[in-house]
Amino acid sequence: MINKPTLLLDEGKCRSNIHQMVSKARRNNVILRPHFKTHQSHEIGQWFREEGIDKITVSSLTMAQYFAQDGWNDITVAFPTNILEIETINELAKKITLRLVVESLETVTFLAKHLTAPIHGWIKIDAGYHRTGISATNYDGISALMFAMDDADKITLDGFLLHAGHSYACRSKEAIIDIHHQSIEALDTLKKHFDHRYPPLKLSLGDTPTCSVAEDFSLVDEIRPGNFVFYDVTQSQIGSCALEQIAIAMACPVVAIHKDRNEVIVYGGSVHFSKDTIDDNGVDTFGVMVETKSNGWGDVIHGAYMKKLSQEHGTIHMPSEKITQIKVGDIVTLLPVHACTTSNLMRSYQTTADERHIARMSSL
Amino acid sequence: MINKPTLLLDEGKCRSNIHQMVSKARRNNVILRPHFKTHQSHEIGQWFREEGIDKITVSSLTMAQYFAQDGWNDITVAFPTNILEIETINELAKKITLRLVVESLETVTFLAKHLTAPIHGWIKIDAGYHRTGISATNYDGISALMFAMDDADKITLDGFLLHAGHSYACRSKEAIIDIHHQSIEALDTLKKHFDHRYPPLKLSLGDTPTCSVAEDFSLVDEIRPGNFVFYDVTQSQIGSCALEQIAIAMACPVVAIHKDRNEVIVYGGSVHFSKDTIDDNGVDTFGVMVETKSNGWGDVIHGAYMKKLSQEHGTIHMPSEKITQIKVGDIVTLLPVHACTTSNLMRSYQTTADERHIARMSSL
Repeated sequence: MINKPTLLLDEGKCRSNIHQMVSKARRNNVILRPHFKTHQSHEIGQWFREEGIDKITVSSLTMAQYFAQDGWNDITVAFPTNILEIETINELAKKITLRLVVESLETVTFLAKHLTAPIHGWIKIDAGYHRTGISATNYDGISALMFAMDDADKITLDGFLLHAGHSYACRSKEAIIDIHHQSIEALDTLKKHFDHRYPPLKLSLGDTPTCSVAEDFSLVDEIRPGNFVFYDVTQSQIGSCALEQIAIAMACPVVAIHKDRNEVIVYGGSVHFSKDTIDDNGVDTFGVMVETKSNGWGDVIHGAYMKKLSQEHGTIHMPSEKITQIKVGDIVTLLPVHACTTSNLMRSYQTTADERHIARMSSL
Repeated sequence: MINKPTLLLDEGKCRSNIHQMVSKARRNNVILRPHFKTHQSHEIGQWFREEGIDKITVSSLTMAQYFAQDGWNDITVAFPTNILEIETINELAKKITLRLVVESLETVTFLAKHLTAPIHGWIKIDAGYHRTGISATNYDGISALMFAMDDADKITLDGFLLHAGHSYACRSKEAIIDIHHQSIEALDTLKKHFDHRYPPLKLSLGDTPTCSVAEDFSLVDEIRPGNFVFYDVTQSQIGSCALEQIAIAMACPVVAIHKDRNEVIVYGGSVHFSKDTIDDNGVDTFGVMVETKSNGWGDVIHGAYMKKLSQEHGTIHMPSEKITQIKVGDIVTLLPVHACTTSNLMRSYQTTADERHIARMSSL
């Protein structure tokens, strides 16, 4: 019985999300190297394996260790290499095919000097997001990185890797497709510029919005979406998914009701949901309320949403005709704004069908 | 050696913050019942014990269990009672003096029926924050709650409890003092209205801003601040503390530098800092950069702050004259915007003086 904030997982929806992305990658003849930072769970990783996935992406060396322990042996750490973790890098590189991402010469020089086992290196390319990466038009900088990697005994250059994180600012499929085309064009131009290489340089991209919406991946070698395993309210607003595809939801006990303010107070706050918020028709929302069902959740309750979060308290706005149906001690259910951060805070999942507990990586 | 995002704790500053609040409570002859939701640590709790504290506040029954395990035997759960956890309530009530907070008749009725061990009850009063509580002027509603609690064999009514959370919106000491006076007046008026009670009803209030700034607590019986144990950038902006009093800071490895954009990328993102943000002179900030020192941190680096957080990436803005001193592989240090949520995410502390690891409650 649920009596505390609980992160529900609809295994059927989750497996369906995985299956659809695997099918799309197959149709396009690209490698799907899913990002596992969203679920961070051995068991959910297994659902990918059952679909034939054997290469993954993670965002930290700690996460790489966690999945290597479960038999994943081809892992890309899609994060600028943290040279302070060189010991972990060497330990992992001895055991698995470890692929690191670099964008600066200092990092390559350091790795060349301190690696004791072979790694693969991707050059992180920035084609518009401007978070990390070397500019896609900075041929001199990219050449210098390539030479340094070629010179390093223990580094094999794989190719160019890009994350079009600015797709998260999109609010239409057309805008997402535009970014997708820009990303592919930037990578393809680079590949042509350096076409003397043998074996040819590979191209890797993929965030959940572009991989969910685009249909043509013919010029790239691999895609790396992650969030699609669960999706969330943000992805539905971007246009990556329907609300019905969202595979996780927060179940929270009602502890107080203030009908005069149309507010329901639940046990479930910022330490459970995270402070991620989204503008939903002009209102800042931390979660969208859905019908609570015995085996999961149902339709969206129009006009009911999480409006405020304190550390343990959540304040839900509910329309007058709905709030009268709520009692102290009820469980209410909300779709999260950002699946990655909510899952990170909640640290485990409870399946809706059989109330099974699914563990996540426990350490940071 | 720090090689991942690490939450540093300056034990000296922390103990000094504790000592100052204990001294203020003694001067005012009020009980200090500190809120332990910020630190959630047995060891830091011990530092309060060493100052003579023997009564505490927590925000969940899980947290009450955690501290009861460490010998705390007078605990107020300052959160509307979650009736779905009645088993935990009864287990705790058997062992310790458990004080619960109620605001609705349904909850009292449920407790009266299901309690198997005695508890104390506080009536949660709303005097302006409008999150939870029964309005301070709703005498009929409050009377009904009091009658129901008097009728319940296993409930002893302690008095009126208030949390002036709207003090967090203040940006001056005068504004904080105004709220403090309003809170005290509301509680005192209530106490006078119900002055036929014997023993007299007690009054409990206290958030970190009012308890840090106000000097007069003569009309109340106890205060319950929590955040002051660490303080944070938000509290310094509110006016509760100086930046020098902040006792925790995040140490993060530098993984990339983009001088052309005045940006430093660190390993340290929203899963480490939390998405709490504050307007600092017109700029949204997730953390304020300070000098990294071998035994902790030093002065604020003017104009350097966390401007953006992704899941694991942090983007720091640095002035041109400072960014030239930073290298990939350096550790940079930032004061957190909200100590409670950052500590919750980081799950443990590392002391600056002796690099000791201090554990926190591990489950939700």
